[in-house]
Amino acid sequence: MSKNEFVLQIPYGTRDFLPHEAACKREIEASIADVFVKWGYDEVVTPTIEYLDTLTIGNGREVEPHMFKFFDKNNRTLALRHEMTTPIARVAASRLNEVELPLKLSYITNVYRYEQAQTGRQCEFYQAGVELMGVPNANADAEVIALSIELLRQAGLENFQICLGQVEFINGVMDQVNLSPKQQQQIKQAMVTRDLVGLGEMLDNTELTNNAKDILKRIPLLHGKEDMLKQAYNMVYNEQSKRALDNLTEIYNLLKGYGFEKYVNFDLGVIRDFNYYTGMVFEAYTPGLGFPLCGGGRYDNMLSDFGTACPATGFALGIERIMLALERQGLAVVSTKKDIYVAWQEGKVLDAIVQAKKLRDEGNSVELALWAQTEKTAEEYQVSKGYHKLVYIG
Amino acid sequence: MSKNEFVLQIPYGTRDFLPHEAACKREIEASIADVFVKWGYDEVVTPTIEYLDTLTIGNGREVEPHMFKFFDKNNRTLALRHEMTTPIARVAASRLNEVELPLKLSYITNVYRYEQAQTGRQCEFYQAGVELMGVPNANADAEVIALSIELLRQAGLENFQICLGQVEFINGVMDQVNLSPKQQQQIKQAMVTRDLVGLGEMLDNTELTNNAKDILKRIPLLHGKEDMLKQAYNMVYNEQSKRALDNLTEIYNLLKGYGFEKYVNFDLGVIRDFNYYTGMVFEAYTPGLGFPLCGGGRYDNMLSDFGTACPATGFALGIERIMLALERQGLAVVSTKKDIYVAWQEGKVLDAIVQAKKLRDEGNSVELALWAQTEKTAEEYQVSKGYHKLVYIG
Repeated sequence: MSKNEFVLQIPYGTRDFLPHEAACKREIEASIADVFVKWGYDEVVTPTIEYLDTLTIGNGREVEPHMFKFFDKNNRTLALRHEMTTPIARVAASRLNEVELPLKLSYITNVYRYEQAQTGRQCEFYQAGVELMGVPNANADAEVIALSIELLRQAGLENFQICLGQVEFINGVMDQVNLSPKQQQQIKQAMVTRDLVGLGEMLDNTELTNNAKDILKRIPLLHGKEDMLKQAYNMVYNEQSKRALDNLTEIYNLLKGYGFEKYVNFDLGVIRDFNYYTGMVFEAYTPGLGFPLCGGGRYDNMLSDFGTACPATGFALGIERIMLALERQGLAVVSTKKDIYVAWQEGKVLDAIVQAKKLRDEGNSVELALWAQTEKTAEEYQVSKGYHKLVYIG
Repeated sequence: MSKNEFVLQIPYGTRDFLPHEAACKREIEASIADVFVKWGYDEVVTPTIEYLDTLTIGNGREVEPHMFKFFDKNNRTLALRHEMTTPIARVAASRLNEVELPLKLSYITNVYRYEQAQTGRQCEFYQAGVELMGVPNANADAEVIALSIELLRQAGLENFQICLGQVEFINGVMDQVNLSPKQQQQIKQAMVTRDLVGLGEMLDNTELTNNAKDILKRIPLLHGKEDMLKQAYNMVYNEQSKRALDNLTEIYNLLKGYGFEKYVNFDLGVIRDFNYYTGMVFEAYTPGLGFPLCGGGRYDNMLSDFGTACPATGFALGIERIMLALERQGLAVVSTKKDIYVAWQEGKVLDAIVQAKKLRDEGNSVELALWAQTEKTAEEYQVSKGYHKLVYIG
């Protein structure tokens, strides 16, 4: 490989957004920013780089192998942020701790994870999301779910479903059937990866009653609309699981207020990062995309790691995933705006400048020719670059 | 320091943008993106991380000590980009090399430099800029200067000046008076840092004629309007310097076409990164800010490092510097938009949701209360959070 080919490469899991893609990304981000403002969620921007100790405080050291790490000049370990919830929690605890609750914050930015790259999963990727802090009730959960639905709609998607679960449902069942903490972790892990065969084998090797095994095997299959909740209600006899189902019913009734119930399915097998979430959890899926468009939930314990106990709920949404879904569903995506090409005959450049300025002031996207051209050459260029109109100053 | 205080810190030279600052940043960036579209400059987005070999190709290894570096899993050295011209040149050479010239590209993003942080100079900072590739003439130079002026105006600044120089003027003088390459570098370095005393001492220690010393000492003082150019013309007797002055005159006449001549001063002492620029160079200054708002120039040699010889001109502008200038000049900066607070009596949450949805659909920024409140409590909250209006559902 020659030197030139070598320097043209980019690192594993990164990408360039060429003009059409970058215009689409900017349009989606502008649409998201607009919705955040309309819903009263204030944007914050945090550094790309944080101390490793800060970023790993919430979910222990599990995420560390997936982080881009390096040292500062004092040999403290820095890392590129792998998500935005922890930085936002840090800002809330350190800079906004005197603000009256609730605190409704949003972000639109890039995050980094060292993972096997594939379509829709790059090592550097763009996220938008919110964190709603200070409210422990279903109103807050319903608001963030409704907001995620509104963002997907405003971005141009219509065909998507929210899968809504509640980690306290499965936690209640676990306690009810007397599983060891280690068994609980194994079973939850099998549910996260939707490994139903592994889950069944694992359960068959326990001392559980057949009834308990049966309940646990059925949890990943508990998805549907309101009637499924009633079915689940009759399966369990512990208060924790029943409270979880009541919470889901309350959230669902609030989502009806938004007219968004058609987007929502319950799925009690959705537990996401179960060591982190403490209540409702949700993911959004769309046909043709094998991974969620967005995900989130309630995490009431995290902020106490920063010295301020505070209930919280929120979500993150993948910008590239929205772009991919729009593309795969053949939905109209903005192209770069190309209105007018202004070209000129030798000696007419000043007239062309005045004309270009006027057309831009009127709101047009205008490319000004940078050398004299014949009208025919100008026409060819206008067509090849996709400008709707030629203005020729002769 | 307790654990909590420790994890609340952020790395040296980084910052958080709290809601008011983040809203200001988003507004300025949206204004810039709008101007780029109107002028036909397509945005591209490149990875934050690149191979060190790619980023250092243009300006040798000089910049390396100021870069955030780390290793990928194959032990190749990665770095956070320290500027955007090199990544854009890489994209142009590798992904857009079949596109008809000229190529007009833009970016709005963050870059990283390990330097002593101070107001307006953080280690992570935000830049917007353009690269215009494929056009060797003054039309291209005038366009990018005019575009930078338009961006500053649209961002809300009015009181600023472009200092316009031409590196070929001083190169011509250097050749005319027979200086060694080492002496040339030293003299240019003194000019970059505006060290007039050092420049004088250095020149007095050379074998140059008094006339030559005099010319070189006067270069940093050569600033003004068109009449200064005539004065400079009479000082030199080499063709290279005279062509440089002709080039500046031509650029200036084109800027008159935009009505932008009032923003432009010539300054032949402006040479910026003289190993990199090959023609006109410029910087924008505003009162109360001790560093340029933006800077750029012509760099005709860089793209050949990527295997594609191509003339190019462009600039980069500091987003935080614009924010700082607007603030210091007391100019109106957007605040976070806070229109209506919708609060509700116990039992009325669904009515409140419907009302909030309606008001948002009408374009308002609406915060919905997340628990039942009395009207009096709601009024207090509305005032304390700065909402213009309260809608109470009782």
